Amino acid sequence: MEKQRVWTAGLVVIGDEILSGRTQDRNVAQLANWLNVQGIRLAEVRIVADVERAIVAAVNALRSAHDYCFTTGGIGPTHDDITVDAVAAALGVPVVVHPEARALLERYYAGRGGLNEGRLRMARAPEGASLIDNPVSGAPGLRLGNLFIMAGVPHITAGMLEGLTGKLEGGRPVVSRTVGAHAPESEVAGLLRDVQLAHDGLSVGSYPFFKEGRVGANFVVRAEDEALVDKALGEIAEGLLAAGYEPVAGGI
Amino acid sequence: MEKQRVWTAGLVVIGDEILSGRTQDRNVAQLANWLNVQGIRLAEVRIVADVERAIVAAVNALRSAHDYCFTTGGIGPTHDDITVDAVAAALGVPVVVHPEARALLERYYAGRGGLNEGRLRMARAPEGASLIDNPVSGAPGLRLGNLFIMAGVPHITAGMLEGLTGKLEGGRPVVSRTVGAHAPESEVAGLLRDVQLAHDGLSVGSYPFFKEGRVGANFVVRAEDEALVDKALGEIAEGLLAAGYEPVAGGI
Repeated sequence: MEKQRVWTAGLVVIGDEILSGRTQDRNVAQLANWLNVQGIRLAEVRIVADVERAIVAAVNALRSAHDYCFTTGGIGPTHDDITVDAVAAALGVPVVVHPEARALLERYYAGRGGLNEGRLRMARAPEGASLIDNPVSGAPGLRLGNLFIMAGVPHITAGMLEGLTGKLEGGRPVVSRTVGAHAPESEVAGLLRDVQLAHDGLSVGSYPFFKEGRVGANFVVRAEDEALVDKALGEIAEGLLAAGYEPVAGGI
Repeated sequence: MEKQRVWTAGLVVIGDEILSGRTQDRNVAQLANWLNVQGIRLAEVRIVADVERAIVAAVNALRSAHDYCFTTGGIGPTHDDITVDAVAAALGVPVVVHPEARALLERYYAGRGGLNEGRLRMARAPEGASLIDNPVSGAPGLRLGNLFIMAGVPHITAGMLEGLTGKLEGGRPVVSRTVGAHAPESEVAGLLRDVQLAHDGLSVGSYPFFKEGRVGANFVVRAEDEALVDKALGEIAEGLLAAGYEPVAGGI
């Protein structure tokens, strides 16, 4: 098979709330899983404080090192939301009020007390940005070239990613299949490792559970090659049977 | 009051499993909370793949930029655990078998099948390293100057941090208090900004939520000076009341 170009992305997570330990980040895993489906690999993440020079340095490093660069956080209405200003500084462009974003926010807040100074902040954008649809709340995300400015609140980011699905050029999507069993993972760890090592470009994950009084685990096989995933999944199922555990296709 | 020196730390999270979205990182929040108590601020995090040059670049950037640099992940027994080699390369020192670590692993595995090739890997260390006690499992963490090499599994890292408590020089711990309200953050953005600008060394964060059908936000005030935190929190509570929102101490 022809060697495929690998598409990579970087993510800059912006927010004192993550670095202070107050908020558990969810966007790294969320973006990683979404990128897998687009055929793009999350190659590096930087988590930085709400400090302009820190954001500028991280954005410039990751947007030049990777095909795509995402940011999450810092696009709300309050004083600590400085992502737009920092990205504009990183790109050397001015901040403007985006007319489409302003119109969108006017409509969104029409029945919610109208635009005020804080809400108008969310219409500001680095010059040249296009909007990323936000189906959850008013303020849109922003795109400038290979740079994607997303919300910090995970379910808002999820809505924005939903709208971007299939629109970014990437390689082959990662295929992921699951088989489950009422087997303690510590008793099949060797089997999983052997299957993983036997195949290039394959990843085997084990996710233990305790449900309805019984322990077990779901085993997730990931690769770009669907036939390879099915082959490896079959090997795990056979190994489970040989060890006396009934494999359940699709997981438990 | 005399201006205090601010102590900062960086963290390098090492692991394909985090970047693939398979594993939800817990060490960023865990280390951040532990550092807060030591009077040290987590200032930057980089999450990198199991690739030596990526680890070397991140470790060298963060150990020179901050008072302390931590790594998590990649110190286990398997072929993809390359943190020790990468750190040695970053520091320009050879990898040696650490005699104390070897003795420790010999004792730990005496009743568990003895040392094998994989387990012996965990006795390797960059030359000059001292050990960080691991009360949970066999393999120790490593310290070299301002660099701390920790486990990837969060509860093992927790045990290592427990042993380091009070041993790192830092400043005053950061005090953090929260007040919440069923107020859209865009309606109180001005209040928050005014309170933050009125006080030096104070940080005010706003974290919106949507719970049980109602929007609102929690406002977190952070500073090293507890009296300052209480004063600012009182100002925010008064401002919320004046705007017609009931402040909820401790957050919603």
